Amino acid sequence: MTKTLNVALIGGGFMGKAHAMAYAAMPMFFWPAPAIPHRKVVVDLTDLAAQEARDRFGFDEASTDWKAIVNRSDIDIVDICTPNDAHAEIAIEALKAGKHVICEKPLASTLEESIAMAEAARASNGTTMVAFNYRRTPAVALAKKFIDEGRIGDVINFRGTYLQDWSADPDGPLSWRFQKKIAGSGAIGDIGTHVIDLAHHLVGPIDNVQAITSTYIKTRPIQQGGVDKLGASEKSSDAERAEVDVDDEVISMVRFKSGAVGSIEASRNAWGRNNFITLEIHGTKGSILFNYERRDELQVMFADDPGDARGFRTIYTGPAHPYGEGLWPIPALGIGYSETKIIECYDFCKAIMDGTQPSPNFEEALLTEQVAEALIRSGKTGLWENI
Amino acid sequence: MTKTLNVALIGGGFMGKAHAMAYAAMPMFFWPAPAIPHRKVVVDLTDLAAQEARDRFGFDEASTDWKAIVNRSDIDIVDICTPNDAHAEIAIEALKAGKHVICEKPLASTLEESIAMAEAARASNGTTMVAFNYRRTPAVALAKKFIDEGRIGDVINFRGTYLQDWSADPDGPLSWRFQKKIAGSGAIGDIGTHVIDLAHHLVGPIDNVQAITSTYIKTRPIQQGGVDKLGASEKSSDAERAEVDVDDEVISMVRFKSGAVGSIEASRNAWGRNNFITLEIHGTKGSILFNYERRDELQVMFADDPGDARGFRTIYTGPAHPYGEGLWPIPALGIGYSETKIIECYDFCKAIMDGTQPSPNFEEALLTEQVAEALIRSGKTGLWENI
Amino acid sequence: MTKTLNVALIGGGFMGKAHAMAYAAMPMFFWPAPAIPHRKVVVDLTDLAAQEARDRFGFDEASTDWKAIVNRSDIDIVDICTPNDAHAEIAIEALKAGKHVICEKPLASTLEESIAMAEAARASNGTTMVAFNYRRTPAVALAKKFIDEGRIGDVINFRGTYLQDWSADPDGPLSWRFQKKIAGSGAIGDIGTHVIDLAHHLVGPIDNVQAITSTYIKTRPIQQGGVDKLGASEKSSDAERAEVDVDDEVISMVRFKSGAVGSIEASRNAWGRNNFITLEIHGTKGSILFNYERRDELQVMFADDPGDARGFRTIYTGPAHPYGEGLWPIPALGIGYSETKIIECYDFCKAIMDGTQPSPNFEEALLTEQVAEALIRSGKTGLWENI
Amino acid sequence: MTKTLNVALIGGGFMGKAHAMAYAAMPMFFWPAPAIPHRKVVVDLTDLAAQEARDRFGFDEASTDWKAIVNRSDIDIVDICTPNDAHAEIAIEALKAGKHVICEKPLASTLEESIAMAEAARASNGTTMVAFNYRRTPAVALAKKFIDEGRIGDVINFRGTYLQDWSADPDGPLSWRFQKKIAGSGAIGDIGTHVIDLAHHLVGPIDNVQAITSTYIKTRPIQQGGVDKLGASEKSSDAERAEVDVDDEVISMVRFKSGAVGSIEASRNAWGRNNFITLEIHGTKGSILFNYERRDELQVMFADDPGDARGFRTIYTGPAHPYGEGLWPIPALGIGYSETKIIECYDFCKAIMDGTQPSPNFEEALLTEQVAEALIRSGKTGLWENI
Repeated sequence: MTKTLNVALIGGGFMGKAHAMAYAAMPMFFWPAPAIPHRKVVVDLTDLAAQEARDRFGFDEASTDWKAIVNRSDIDIVDICTPNDAHAEIAIEALKAGKHVICEKPLASTLEESIAMAEAARASNGTTMVAFNYRRTPAVALAKKFIDEGRIGDVINFRGTYLQDWSADPDGPLSWRFQKKIAGSGAIGDIGTHVIDLAHHLVGPIDNVQAITSTYIKTRPIQQGGVDKLGASEKSSDAERAEVDVDDEVISMVRFKSGAVGSIEASRNAWGRNNFITLEIHGTKGSILFNYERRDELQVMFADDPGDARGFRTIYTGPAHPYGEGLWPIPALGIGYSETKIIECYDFCKAIMDGTQPSPNFEEALLTEQVAEALIRSGKTGLWENI
Repeated sequence: MTKTLNVALIGGGFMGKAHAMAYAAMPMFFWPAPAIPHRKVVVDLTDLAAQEARDRFGFDEASTDWKAIVNRSDIDIVDICTPNDAHAEIAIEALKAGKHVICEKPLASTLEESIAMAEAARASNGTTMVAFNYRRTPAVALAKKFIDEGRIGDVINFRGTYLQDWSADPDGPLSWRFQKKIAGSGAIGDIGTHVIDLAHHLVGPIDNVQAITSTYIKTRPIQQGGVDKLGASEKSSDAERAEVDVDDEVISMVRFKSGAVGSIEASRNAWGRNNFITLEIHGTKGSILFNYERRDELQVMFADDPGDARGFRTIYTGPAHPYGEGLWPIPALGIGYSETKIIECYDFCKAIMDGTQPSPNFEEALLTEQVAEALIRSGKTGLWENI
Repeated sequence: MTKTLNVALIGGGFMGKAHAMAYAAMPMFFWPAPAIPHRKVVVDLTDLAAQEARDRFGFDEASTDWKAIVNRSDIDIVDICTPNDAHAEIAIEALKAGKHVICEKPLASTLEESIAMAEAARASNGTTMVAFNYRRTPAVALAKKFIDEGRIGDVINFRGTYLQDWSADPDGPLSWRFQKKIAGSGAIGDIGTHVIDLAHHLVGPIDNVQAITSTYIKTRPIQQGGVDKLGASEKSSDAERAEVDVDDEVISMVRFKSGAVGSIEASRNAWGRNNFITLEIHGTKGSILFNYERRDELQVMFADDPGDARGFRTIYTGPAHPYGEGLWPIPALGIGYSETKIIECYDFCKAIMDGTQPSPNFEEALLTEQVAEALIRSGKTGLWENI
Repeated sequence: MTKTLNVALIGGGFMGKAHAMAYAAMPMFFWPAPAIPHRKVVVDLTDLAAQEARDRFGFDEASTDWKAIVNRSDIDIVDICTPNDAHAEIAIEALKAGKHVICEKPLASTLEESIAMAEAARASNGTTMVAFNYRRTPAVALAKKFIDEGRIGDVINFRGTYLQDWSADPDGPLSWRFQKKIAGSGAIGDIGTHVIDLAHHLVGPIDNVQAITSTYIKTRPIQQGGVDKLGASEKSSDAERAEVDVDDEVISMVRFKSGAVGSIEASRNAWGRNNFITLEIHGTKGSILFNYERRDELQVMFADDPGDARGFRTIYTGPAHPYGEGLWPIPALGIGYSETKIIECYDFCKAIMDGTQPSPNFEEALLTEQVAEALIRSGKTGLWENI
């Protein structure tokens, strides 16, 4: 009989919702499932918030005491969906308690914490994972397959962007995402790390970087109430304002250990871009394009196609592609954010049951944090910074 | 406290999965939820299939006796995900038993059955709904809003298509979808009804139609095993073949009661098209475009925009648009098939709790069947056929 | 030495400009050129207009007497760019005088005239051509090549549209294009014939049709001055108005002699569409898409591509494709309206020098007129009309 | 009466063709024309080449002695379409002779030559222009208009690319474009300068740059015959090879004097990209996108659009946009490479007649060369390099 894995979810916000949905839906999609996740306890800051999360997300119990919960013997998985500055303490405690830990990205709010988390993972028997869900988009998984099979030759150039506009309005609130002491960094950690993760996944380790970092909006209205509503937040032009001490944007050039070069850009101030994660990858025998805003599609060009029929193929992912057995039986029925999170849950549970470490685990995610930190450093020094 | 609605799901295939996921996820998205659906019993043809569906989809119980189940007093919702020829009998029995009934599209496999279902709905206190989920895509809901607000003026022309290619291969198996006695019709009922539903939703009732119907692949390999796998099915070129007695494709012209004209096309033999549901709607003051393959986007053109800045706007749906409060906090995080079914579940549960009839209910869906039947008729007579 | 062909251009408006440019540019592009066209005489209604056209378009002489000009012994080519109702008289006179004749589309303003023109062509030794330039877009020529080579199998479905919005504004002037006595018909003749021509070119003769024709704007401001400025015309809401007696839009279904079916739509009232000539062609082994608004591109899907790499290829036409030797040395340098007209000029001159009839010549274009006339007829009868 | 300007064209290759066409067509498009260019003499290396160019491009005379020609009193315009290393000598001689000079880009093959050319221009009364035609694409001109009018606020980020793949094949011939002594640089001068020119045009002067330059293909087959055929060249895998001493690709970050930041990328090794000149420009109140491969279109997003109707507008340029009075009367009839060159010719002739200096003239183009040279320098030093 399929094993049950009891989950403790720490943090009942936007990401808690996404993870809770995935626990419920994963076995419906990937069957036979590697395990059946059971929504056991959800933890939030107040009783009210925790109880609401319990009812809303279908957990058995609610709690405000994460430390007690992560040490309970009936918990298998600790799932960390808090703001960044709480990741390290919870994750390390959970790993010490022998739990499997999945943590939302970025790994932590400081490089020191990230290092400590990676060390704790190494010292533990638990399976760890960082929730860089975009690399699990089927179209990205297909890109990975094409690259690994050599179908575009050797990668020579990688260009990745993550552009949003939800914070382009100067009257958007100063949520925790704009505060260094909680978030660690701005666009770099929040969304840039997704692109770094994709670069590592598809091209391999980054060796050194050069960056320009910018903060366009120097102050923002102090947020009323604690909830981070991202693009759904109210704009308030007459509220008291406080300083933004993180970056709005990073543009950069990168060199990979493989010899490939490239560029990475992340901005939350790019009017008209919503969740514009794009990849353009040139190889010696072809190219690959991806745009998450049209995430059902991968575009690939093979240089050895006949001269009169050569061009980017727009492939809609489906049963013939990675994860196709678990998703929908016809391409373009539609991959949404839900589906990416369901796949992530599947890979995590599978790794737990197989006793392996999925990718990216804490150690791999540490590399991503090191690149992020080098970008910040280069933004200050104006020099190439090594990882 | 939020009321719980106990669900009996009849049919544990592709659609059963989609509905089960929606029951689990709906309150996570739309909170406070109108009600909490509880996955009580799943029914399938064999014990084995039913038990597997129970474990996979998270139901309390499994059964093979739908009649007993739909008459149980602890069941609130009967959800019909069987092949088309079983819809009527189950739905009518469930309505007689006082249940709320949601039924997959098309309403039934014959017009007679559809009429009987609509009559049973009228005679019942239950809430009914037919699962035309595409009209609940946020971008389609936004199109509806723009039209209702007069922002493109009066609609003069509607063009809708639903093109797929999963059955373009002559060696794809003869599943129930190619058998008239089970499916009723081919592309017309299977996918064409979605376009008719969208036309009714956005422009109003269709008055008469002219159609060409085609069956391109006259025989197909007899399917081994009973499961319909759509695009994931194996192709077999050496199996014994039997006749296809439904349409592969319909192209048509339509006249609406409003005076608008248009065209509707559905094909499962359109190589390269996957789930290509498109709308092009011309009004006296603007136009609307939609393509489900890029379903996060609605395109709208307003004729009164300044001359130098006039063109289709590509709007990514998000918090500022219909259903935005329940979905994701940033546009283009991604609407997938999952999200459309979660919205459908929300609207159905809300209607139950409000004591209203959602759209399309059985009566409205009967109109759609009448159009489908007129298309088939016109395909034979070559004449304009009235609804 | 390359032969010179002396040209008499009748009509110095929008189309005169396009043709004059093509005569000048053709040998620059296609070299060695089949012949060197020499801009000898341009004819317009008034001395002033003719002299301006002479200076502007680089002709040696100006005239207002087309009849004298087409009978001059030093003229080789008569090029007819007048409104539709003058085509027949000029063309027949020119053919009788032994000239080669190129005529703007549609062939004429009535079917009777078209028949007379085809007869005159048959009785003459001249080369005739009708300026359906869109079939000469390199991407369309590539589509033709793919179809002829069987690369998408047998064509089963053809869908063609030509949508514009330059006349969607009710205050756009009543130019000759809205007057039956001059234009013959509205959208059908003006732009629908282009789609019929493309259908004939790519799929073969149309057998019968069913149509809905609509006139949305019943009256328009009487035009001040005689020049037809299309999308550049001034709108006037307070001018005196007169009746429009032609169609604004046609939607239709068609059956080809080959057994293929399809649909054709033309509208000048489709807000947001500019010169939206689209083709969607389904074959038994693949599909082809084309959109003139992105005319450098042809999209083609081959069903026998490997399952994980199947999808529409977006091919940018260039040196590897039809007419590539004469155009630009890199794809996407750019095909504009100019380039389509230069190709047309090349094919016409080549046919003259080879002593062949290019396609479409007057006889072939007559078939297009017959389909156009059947569409108008069907719009009235509501019946399938044979060609 | 409209003045005639006699043209001496130096160089009868790909660019000679484009310019000759523009001289013939310009007055047909822009009427009344500022002047009528007359194709007087064409100069090429051999008698044969020059005479062929004369016949093909419609010049009165052929010559092999550029120095004699540019000193002839009946020549008004000297048009330089030679390889880069001949630009300076010809231009300076022509300017000394009091001619108006238009020169193909880049300005020269060395910075020293560029400086000398700018000085010669300053010392002369002639009008100078460098043929950066892409900034004259109507959609780019519209972008300029929107920026100048403040409609996207202050520009904060500019991202420009020019990607091609015609030299991605290692067996493409070693034309002059791969030889430093003739071309000066590789992708940087050939296509990167176009992007720098666009950046200067739209955002203003660049202040400093950081670059990675790469040469992917170290040797190429020695070219048989002297003609540069770009994408139409034959590939030869068994020919003798020689060294490539220029860059295949540059990626870079840039800072503008205005405070804006950005990135510029140019590659001739990007498989699948043809003439992929793209712009993404973020402002404080909106954004602009452009892709030359779909050059009829400009995309613009205005942040102050209503929340439910906000998104990029795809504007097809036409009569309502810059240069619209001279081009085609309906948007999307089509802008090709021809049309961009016709506009360039118009602006040059207009400046001559007005006695003004068009943009970019030699002095402005020198700034572009300085940026190009800083990119090359930074590629070696790994440091930020000032202009």
